[in-house]
Amino acid sequence: MTVAPGAGGLPRKVAVIGAGSIGGGWAALCASAGWPVTIFDTNARAIEDALVDVPRRAHALIGLDRATPGIVERGLMEFQQAKSLLQAVRDADWVIEAIHEDLAAKQRLLDSIEQVADPEAIVTSSSSGLAPGDLFGRLLQRQRCMVAHPLNPPELLPIVEIVPGEETDPDAIERAKTYLRALGRMPILLHKAVPGYVVGRIAAAVWRECIDLVLTGAVSLGPALGWAAAGPHLTYHLGAGAGGVHIFLQHLLTSFEKWWGDLASWDRLEPSQQRQLISAIEKAYEDRIVMLRFTRDKRLGAILRALEQARTT
Amino acid sequence: MTVAPGAGGLPRKVAVIGAGSIGGGWAALCASAGWPVTIFDTNARAIEDALVDVPRRAHALIGLDRATPGIVERGLMEFQQAKSLLQAVRDADWVIEAIHEDLAAKQRLLDSIEQVADPEAIVTSSSSGLAPGDLFGRLLQRQRCMVAHPLNPPELLPIVEIVPGEETDPDAIERAKTYLRALGRMPILLHKAVPGYVVGRIAAAVWRECIDLVLTGAVSLGPALGWAAAGPHLTYHLGAGAGGVHIFLQHLLTSFEKWWGDLASWDRLEPSQQRQLISAIEKAYEDRIVMLRFTRDKRLGAILRALEQARTT
Repeated sequence: MTVAPGAGGLPRKVAVIGAGSIGGGWAALCASAGWPVTIFDTNARAIEDALVDVPRRAHALIGLDRATPGIVERGLMEFQQAKSLLQAVRDADWVIEAIHEDLAAKQRLLDSIEQVADPEAIVTSSSSGLAPGDLFGRLLQRQRCMVAHPLNPPELLPIVEIVPGEETDPDAIERAKTYLRALGRMPILLHKAVPGYVVGRIAAAVWRECIDLVLTGAVSLGPALGWAAAGPHLTYHLGAGAGGVHIFLQHLLTSFEKWWGDLASWDRLEPSQQRQLISAIEKAYEDRIVMLRFTRDKRLGAILRALEQARTT
Repeated sequence: MTVAPGAGGLPRKVAVIGAGSIGGGWAALCASAGWPVTIFDTNARAIEDALVDVPRRAHALIGLDRATPGIVERGLMEFQQAKSLLQAVRDADWVIEAIHEDLAAKQRLLDSIEQVADPEAIVTSSSSGLAPGDLFGRLLQRQRCMVAHPLNPPELLPIVEIVPGEETDPDAIERAKTYLRALGRMPILLHKAVPGYVVGRIAAAVWRECIDLVLTGAVSLGPALGWAAAGPHLTYHLGAGAGGVHIFLQHLLTSFEKWWGDLASWDRLEPSQQRQLISAIEKAYEDRIVMLRFTRDKRLGAILRALEQARTT
């Protein structure tokens, strides 16, 4: 995170379109790496809020030992709002689409970005589950477009799912991975676009099961339940701001229902599938078992110690 | 974890029946709290291994700041092997069944325990998904029996699922919760026995989805995937010892297939169910949102910092 902007194939400037929670997180993350960021939103109020929120979130990364004061200040000195989309994308090597999860709105925005962005820029959508074919299908320059879906909050959680379209250029994917790794992210490349990608599908499977446990009366929600089954419920309740889970369902139930309809629902693993699975797992981890177990135990111990300290201090 | 055995309603002695990985973890945990533990297994080799493994695991808790040297040594001085079930359960206030997941074998053992255990002792089964009605149904003293299912390794992971049978005495449940809390565990009480309980069902939902993502070619397993979808695969591959996922499937596929067959598979949340869910979530967390968000962010920051340190040191 100490590489100077423009050097080593890093972006001279990042344009973040959409100044909500996700866009603000991307802006805070890029600024905390010292990169110039311009943010734009058609909603003037959202931009005003972001001008306070982004510096706050970038500074918070210092307190968490995830950024260096001097670099954050350098990045924030070049953090700007744009008065138009044209102004936002000027000289940007990376345009990040981060508006709300509405396919038609994202399609319109991506079409506008195509008109004004530098032809050399890559364009990533922060969608949490829409198909790249639907998002980028009408564009002329599909080779530079892909989904780069962060977890929330993007400046804290390291996983980013990269979902290319069928026509995305491998060089563009490599550039996105380089940018993300320079930001301390862990990009995960999907070979095939599936509704909800990886993270959304797993979250949907977990949440459906947790909802069912509550609705059938197997568990009560409450402090004693801890994260075991309360995890997703509390996460989504907190995730939707003051409106809580009520608003969350209004905004995202349609997405979840689509993913639920597409999730695995088989209950038998046939012998040939068992062999395929065993071979994939053995191949992925062969000769590294001792090291992986050591690392797993070390990480587990570190997490437990950290949670203990967070509880007592 | 500093309470003397016998004081404050804590067990004078714990009997652990089954000296495998789970039984050894229970023994290490109780010994690390200074409690006298006697372990028994019909397999002499398993006991010999446990006599080395349990002290090693109890000492490891000191290195992780989860136990105090003096208390661990006091507990280990009273850690013993038994030559018979009768000897193991003598004077024990808590009998922990921790043999392999085989209903008939557990039923036979629980029947034998009933013949010899102190009438005042509570008896808990470590089963990871069998129904209390099946486990305890043939016993005469069903009121003192329940499932107390730990995660693996039991001495590290704090969650323990308590699944009472229909005739379990509320006082016995309270005693189990007191013991578990004194051991630093977080007991979760299930109101209704469902196959796989809570943890197994969520693990089964996650794993089925992760298997599907691999089998359909959406992701490749490998280091770059990190925990996102590799989590369950690597966990089970490591969990089965030298035999890896191949042995894991041999031992546990039948359980998982039963749970998969019973998991939620609906894909619509009807308006009345939405209201029921919203009301349960709002009631569980009302007036505590600001505190819960603060705690969540603190825990998240602590985990990320710990993982970062575990990576670099």
